[in-house]
Amino acid sequence: MPDRIILKLGGSVITDKERGDAGVIRESVLQEVARALKEYADIPLLLIHGAGSCGHPQARQYHIQSGVSRENREGIYATHQAVSALNELVVRTLRAEGIEAVSVHPLEGMVASGGELSGYCLTHLHLMIDLGIVPVLHGDVVMDTEKGACIVSGDQLVRVLAQKLGMKRIGLATDVPGLLDADGSVVRELRRTMAHTIRIEGSGSVDVTGGMQGKISELLRLADIGIESDIFHISRLQDFLSGADHGGTRILPEGA
Amino acid sequence: MPDRIILKLGGSVITDKERGDAGVIRESVLQEVARALKEYADIPLLLIHGAGSCGHPQARQYHIQSGVSRENREGIYATHQAVSALNELVVRTLRAEGIEAVSVHPLEGMVASGGELSGYCLTHLHLMIDLGIVPVLHGDVVMDTEKGACIVSGDQLVRVLAQKLGMKRIGLATDVPGLLDADGSVVRELRRTMAHTIRIEGSGSVDVTGGMQGKISELLRLADIGIESDIFHISRLQDFLSGADHGGTRILPEGA
Repeated sequence: MPDRIILKLGGSVITDKERGDAGVIRESVLQEVARALKEYADIPLLLIHGAGSCGHPQARQYHIQSGVSRENREGIYATHQAVSALNELVVRTLRAEGIEAVSVHPLEGMVASGGELSGYCLTHLHLMIDLGIVPVLHGDVVMDTEKGACIVSGDQLVRVLAQKLGMKRIGLATDVPGLLDADGSVVRELRRTMAHTIRIEGSGSVDVTGGMQGKISELLRLADIGIESDIFHISRLQDFLSGADHGGTRILPEGA
Repeated sequence: MPDRIILKLGGSVITDKERGDAGVIRESVLQEVARALKEYADIPLLLIHGAGSCGHPQARQYHIQSGVSRENREGIYATHQAVSALNELVVRTLRAEGIEAVSVHPLEGMVASGGELSGYCLTHLHLMIDLGIVPVLHGDVVMDTEKGACIVSGDQLVRVLAQKLGMKRIGLATDVPGLLDADGSVVRELRRTMAHTIRIEGSGSVDVTGGMQGKISELLRLADIGIESDIFHISRLQDFLSGADHGGTRILPEGA
């Protein structure tokens, strides 16, 4: 059986972040993703998507990132509801294209401590993947032992699940060709020791979970424990799946 | 702070089981439940509901109880979707009445082995309850290390969560006054040693998870480890919450 893959679909890929209103999903992009995935249906897969234009307004309105108490606890439902609605659309669209996708909401089975995921059951994810079911997770609000609740980004989910599920192939599909340097050129390989020499361009639409900077930070932590990952433009998804050059950025362990 | 409560709302209480079509929710009953819960809003609470008329048709159609493989794996989504739709209605109705309810779907964070729940993260449930959030779980299809997937009843959730969360007050609200003996009289107290002397009447609408027989079996297992529980008619919910006599059945440890 081929190596299992974690594929992250950036929030900007699946929603229109420029339009602030929630739920502006790019259905045609998702349909293309589904068609690509079907060509590689023998690859066991876990999908994660960003929140895009959904959830951020609620997270801000209720000041989730400052911690959650009884006073702003309803922000948990409000934020979760917004990103869950997006997740449901993603799952429905993938299923309509023949992908056996199933929603898995982080709030409902995971917990964080100080903003970092610290508790979860993973066995059900293993079992789903082994049955050819595609669990679809997403950036979400998660209960937190220190802060009451916090936002866990899709990128943090990528790091934690890649490590804990023992995944070897990690792909982040974005709306840019990869990590861009100050000249706008794609950085083809990135390692921890060279990371400080590169000025990372922010993504156009700032979100509460950090954009490209947050992505790189999580992926370098994966590289630190020997796990490679790839950032590429969504249009190059098939190249990533087939193992061809995707024209984007590889985040590599030191010495690799 | 008062003892934390697990309250189970029977499937027959919140849906019309006689009508086979999914989603026939008894909104007025749920509104009454919410009003009762609001009067005791200082009691930390976890809610579980049965699937009622939802989910059973899908579970049967895909033969979930015979085990799940690649051939019938789509039954997982179909069954989960049906019970999740009910759960969403329950949560929305409770929220509309001012209860800070949040959905927690067992499929998305738990796993079973041979039909028995065997893996789960519970910290997020503790944190929600401590914040005055009411997690609302439900009978669900759950991945299973031996059978691929299985149905976990709301009653099994009651037993496992009561034990693992250290809950001391367990109430099952049903559409009957309690456990009835062959004469139709309420059995006021039930202990393991007397259980075999009572012929348990089945509930009118048979479901895949065992009706009253399944309930008693789970609650006797709780009694075996020293945890009492109560079965009562939904109209007596306030009596249960206030600690008054609810006219139903108490399931007691030997010697209690």
